[in-house]
Amino acid sequence: MTTQVIVVNGGSSSGKSGITRCLKAVLPRTWISLGVDDLIEALPARLMHCDAGVVLGGNGEVRVGPDFRAAEAAWTVGIAAMARAGARVVIDDVFLHGRDSQERLRAALAGLDVLWVGVRCDPETAAGREIARGDRVIGMAAAQAEKVHKGVRYDVEVDTSHTGALECARAIAKHVV
Amino acid sequence: MTTQVIVVNGGSSSGKSGITRCLKAVLPRTWISLGVDDLIEALPARLMHCDAGVVLGGNGEVRVGPDFRAAEAAWTVGIAAMARAGARVVIDDVFLHGRDSQERLRAALAGLDVLWVGVRCDPETAAGREIARGDRVIGMAAAQAEKVHKGVRYDVEVDTSHTGALECARAIAKHVV
Amino acid sequence: MTTQVIVVNGGSSSGKSGITRCLKAVLPRTWISLGVDDLIEALPARLMHCDAGVVLGGNGEVRVGPDFRAAEAAWTVGIAAMARAGARVVIDDVFLHGRDSQERLRAALAGLDVLWVGVRCDPETAAGREIARGDRVIGMAAAQAEKVHKGVRYDVEVDTSHTGALECARAIAKHVV
Amino acid sequence: MTTQVIVVNGGSSSGKSGITRCLKAVLPRTWISLGVDDLIEALPARLMHCDAGVVLGGNGEVRVGPDFRAAEAAWTVGIAAMARAGARVVIDDVFLHGRDSQERLRAALAGLDVLWVGVRCDPETAAGREIARGDRVIGMAAAQAEKVHKGVRYDVEVDTSHTGALECARAIAKHVV
Repeated sequence: MTTQVIVVNGGSSSGKSGITRCLKAVLPRTWISLGVDDLIEALPARLMHCDAGVVLGGNGEVRVGPDFRAAEAAWTVGIAAMARAGARVVIDDVFLHGRDSQERLRAALAGLDVLWVGVRCDPETAAGREIARGDRVIGMAAAQAEKVHKGVRYDVEVDTSHTGALECARAIAKHVV
Repeated sequence: MTTQVIVVNGGSSSGKSGITRCLKAVLPRTWISLGVDDLIEALPARLMHCDAGVVLGGNGEVRVGPDFRAAEAAWTVGIAAMARAGARVVIDDVFLHGRDSQERLRAALAGLDVLWVGVRCDPETAAGREIARGDRVIGMAAAQAEKVHKGVRYDVEVDTSHTGALECARAIAKHVV
Repeated sequence: MTTQVIVVNGGSSSGKSGITRCLKAVLPRTWISLGVDDLIEALPARLMHCDAGVVLGGNGEVRVGPDFRAAEAAWTVGIAAMARAGARVVIDDVFLHGRDSQERLRAALAGLDVLWVGVRCDPETAAGREIARGDRVIGMAAAQAEKVHKGVRYDVEVDTSHTGALECARAIAKHVV
Repeated sequence: MTTQVIVVNGGSSSGKSGITRCLKAVLPRTWISLGVDDLIEALPARLMHCDAGVVLGGNGEVRVGPDFRAAEAAWTVGIAAMARAGARVVIDDVFLHGRDSQERLRAALAGLDVLWVGVRCDPETAAGREIARGDRVIGMAAAQAEKVHKGVRYDVEVDTSHTGALECARAIAKHVV
């Protein structure tokens, strides 16, 4: 079998985007990456401040409503179709509901050869990065650091607390067949 | 019939992105937008400087190679699948080969109700915007301004030379059913 | 006399940044640009959400507190010093208090040869651009469009409602000596 | 004495910007940050591709010409004036010529109480971050990692190879009086 999809799951500011860029650099073939940040960018701006879309709670909690969910479901169908049409795809995601999120995504990717990757980062380090980046809502990193991995099963896990994105990407790349 | 896809075609710096954001703001339902700039962002960075991917000529000309084309084909299949799964999608594109580009996209969107929108802008105005934006390769705006519309058939056309993005979006929105 | 400083004043989304980039492109010598957006970027992020710094009201109104004012005063002294040290400087500003803002800046620039430029844009067009840009607080454009010009005296005025940034920059450049 | 200026020197992708943002977050008073990236942004775009301005060599080497130097000199005079006018300033810099760069800056900051900070990062880690960031010229990180520290004397040094930006900022903050 050939890996068709790499799913990279981790909390906000855990280092997913950097790992994804490095993966595309170290993997010899052409990979397309799409993530939840791209979906948010693709949606109308008004959805980011309403109950039907996405609401950021004061403590870094993220709640998503029915309009976001509906868009996300169609978006995921589309990404799966890209992979079925022959593209190799990296999906950069935040499993807000841990295992349930994984099962939903697994169903959408049925029939595809998926490599499941967990990106861990200790909450304090992730919270520090959130401040260092300067363009993030403070609190999300700590709120998501552990929750997004609850009950999730991975083929490979990396920890960015003390390891750089490129090194993590190389470790993941060894599992891509 | 209900409009499922809006294709917005225009040259670099013609104002497509602004119109797309305004469309998402003025249309009452949730629309997802994806464009060629998103595809470029989704691909490995190395593809932007090689013959197999995308090469920018000195005079603002853009040439695309087989790896870019293959990725673009799968990408388009995915976007069509999003629309078939119930999402309303705005595709923001640059028809580098005019009519041929449109026919290729039309085939990928077969069975969907598509609104074809042309975004025109006189070459000098677009070239001025290119300088004003500060993050664009100089020359692309002028090189593409007319070429991308060659032989293309539209349901509605707007001209951003003297009309703002919001006003153009409102004119387009009247054709969305 | 030789123009040492160009002050470009206009409301949010009136097109100042684009004009400033075009000015730097069309003027034959090297100009440095610094604006209020750079100051905001230079300050601690926490100042953007507190009474001592900057508060954005629900209707697009901007109020600034003592910590912002103190930083701004020193910042302006620094920019004036750059010009006195031989740099040609474009200051991109928003005169929240119209004439009072201008007099404060005029005092800081004492002894320098300043070209005062007003960038006007009709409120509806500016509000449309605000939506088109996608990264702005909605309401600021309309709230500031006229207020920032109250009692201000200019050497040259441009209107971006129907004229591109490059053309405006060329009109301004004729007044630079 | 009270620290008036913090100079943060390190190679490209060593983590200076993140440390600077964290410094502004952890220091109780208001600090203004300005760096060489801001200067580059402030200059006309054409200076980034010409001998008189900045030229990027194929191997990540950066050469600066007379127009850049002249602008930089006036820019630095201005930043010093901000500090003399009462602002606390973080200068984020890349000492392309090591000790000579430091002496030039030291002269411009004469009379001010300056904390000199070195940000080290092993070349491989910095090169990995360069790929992870996705918007940098590849090669600069490795080319600058050690060179920028040659002969430079610091009050405090941090190493971001295995330590986060926030932790580094806290270590630096202890030296701010």
